[in-house]
Amino acid sequence: MALQNRQYRLAARPVGLAKESDWKMTTEPVADPGEGQVLVKVLLLSLDPAMRGWMNEGRSYIEPVGIGEVMRAGGIGKVVASKNPGFVAGDLVAGGFGIQEYCLVADLKKAGLHKIDPRIGTPAQWLNALGMPGMTAYFGLLEVGQPKEGDTVVVSGAAGAVGQTAGQIARIKGCRTVGIAGGKAKCDFVVNELKFDACIDYKASPQAVREGLKAHCPKGVDVYFDNVGGEILEVVLTRINRGARIVICGAVSQYNNTAPVKGPSTYMMLLVARARMQGMVVFDYADRYGEAIKQIAQWMKEGKFISREDIVPGIENFPATMNKLFSGGNFGKLVLKVADA
Amino acid sequence: MALQNRQYRLAARPVGLAKESDWKMTTEPVADPGEGQVLVKVLLLSLDPAMRGWMNEGRSYIEPVGIGEVMRAGGIGKVVASKNPGFVAGDLVAGGFGIQEYCLVADLKKAGLHKIDPRIGTPAQWLNALGMPGMTAYFGLLEVGQPKEGDTVVVSGAAGAVGQTAGQIARIKGCRTVGIAGGKAKCDFVVNELKFDACIDYKASPQAVREGLKAHCPKGVDVYFDNVGGEILEVVLTRINRGARIVICGAVSQYNNTAPVKGPSTYMMLLVARARMQGMVVFDYADRYGEAIKQIAQWMKEGKFISREDIVPGIENFPATMNKLFSGGNFGKLVLKVADA
Repeated sequence: MALQNRQYRLAARPVGLAKESDWKMTTEPVADPGEGQVLVKVLLLSLDPAMRGWMNEGRSYIEPVGIGEVMRAGGIGKVVASKNPGFVAGDLVAGGFGIQEYCLVADLKKAGLHKIDPRIGTPAQWLNALGMPGMTAYFGLLEVGQPKEGDTVVVSGAAGAVGQTAGQIARIKGCRTVGIAGGKAKCDFVVNELKFDACIDYKASPQAVREGLKAHCPKGVDVYFDNVGGEILEVVLTRINRGARIVICGAVSQYNNTAPVKGPSTYMMLLVARARMQGMVVFDYADRYGEAIKQIAQWMKEGKFISREDIVPGIENFPATMNKLFSGGNFGKLVLKVADA
Repeated sequence: MALQNRQYRLAARPVGLAKESDWKMTTEPVADPGEGQVLVKVLLLSLDPAMRGWMNEGRSYIEPVGIGEVMRAGGIGKVVASKNPGFVAGDLVAGGFGIQEYCLVADLKKAGLHKIDPRIGTPAQWLNALGMPGMTAYFGLLEVGQPKEGDTVVVSGAAGAVGQTAGQIARIKGCRTVGIAGGKAKCDFVVNELKFDACIDYKASPQAVREGLKAHCPKGVDVYFDNVGGEILEVVLTRINRGARIVICGAVSQYNNTAPVKGPSTYMMLLVARARMQGMVVFDYADRYGEAIKQIAQWMKEGKFISREDIVPGIENFPATMNKLFSGGNFGKLVLKVADA
């Protein structure tokens, strides 16, 4: 084959925000699939805050990406050649393809290679509400957050991939749903399109979150779905109700820290409120993804739920696009478009 | 009556550790009990880290003590006069008497006035294992920590009132039990008398907790019963196992902070380990105290469980004695002895 595969490899462990020099772009010829293997042309790649964590050494819920390895990323692709009986050329598939144009999938299980049904959602939606962020929000909110009808649920990163789904599910479950997001445009989107009850613009003023919670959560906070950590977590903790559940899903405000992470100085509110703070990792619910996809697809069909993506074209834009996640520069689930079809 | 009652009243809200000038000692004549009231001569008073919190303004699980009010404290006393059919002179009683020599109990329910049985435990034990610290440890460990046989349970403040009971219950329940305490004498006591499997002296070196956990918790930490907060909490979090439970019972290292509380910078380990951190307040279990007292008394009778108190005589020593709690100066449950009988 004459096909060439451009790839982004991790060149160095970043200190703070990743720099261009932390990446190395390589070009390799695409190999033919061997027995049992599948060659995928990558169409879309999912860019997620968690990827920043995978670039660090140290104990986490997943092995770090090694120096010199293709950067790990989930994506959507099209099978271009297959020597595996489960796949044929033309199949739309999802899996862990990495930041590259082609992926020769040898270990199908490790890559989580599976077909997607374009009748249920667009390829981008399969990276968002029907993909990892949607699964994270669904199980994080329902299993860890355990919202009850009438509860007040606060979601940070409300316009982002996980937040948009978490909040919409809370609203569908009959909760008062209050988002926190950065900037008027995102807050308007959260209220007008995602139909949260309110959205607090944390960038509006230093007191915006504190005042916004007072105004929009008059009965306190029963569930806080936290994607951001840092000061917002600290402030929300001061407003929690007795028996509140704090879902620790992420801490995007802290992922590029060069100083130690800021722990929540108000954590003793957990005692005052007899509340709990609990972490979750989506992979633990892998055997139930089907249930969540079916439910979210149903809500989409009924017009109760929308999925919003921010699609940036060009694999060569990967380094700069990835960093948008940490400046709040994306608006909806951030997706890198590698090819049209 | 010619009896005089010396009392410690809160004169000012302390900044940091309470100073002598934050207290005012007053002397009042003792009034006769009115209809339904009970006059108690205070014998022992319980000094607890939580009292420091009651001296601050702001939202907590209990109202702050008002300026000019007698400092709130639980104690053991003897009824000297009663116009309530439930009590007669000579009864040994427990309740919220405050830092004073006599307490005229008007609202028996609010004071939690109840008789104690000296056959089950000494008056000091009724302030320790059979009192609030024991109840806190019992329900905090069993209900929030949910230890399973074979789990590794770490307890900070292990020689203290709550810690000694929490750890002994963990040991009785078949857990590997590791204490953290300050100084060799306390650690020896924790291992030799309380019969924990090991005890880490956090004062031994800056790396003592980190190294001690590695050495004594080779299978990681399943339950952490936290009485201290601060750096010890941060370090223990780095060693937790999947699904671990962190019981937030107190944060004695932070109660006299003038700077903001140090939040646990390693709290994202909750995500990595899918663990939870949950606060508890003993009052929530008030209707089950009888069950806990019966069980702990049984363990004491069987020789499986001991209760150690540090009894300091003299109400006039209250201000300095109270501060021992924050320097690690007490050895066992700290009790102020006000009168002999």
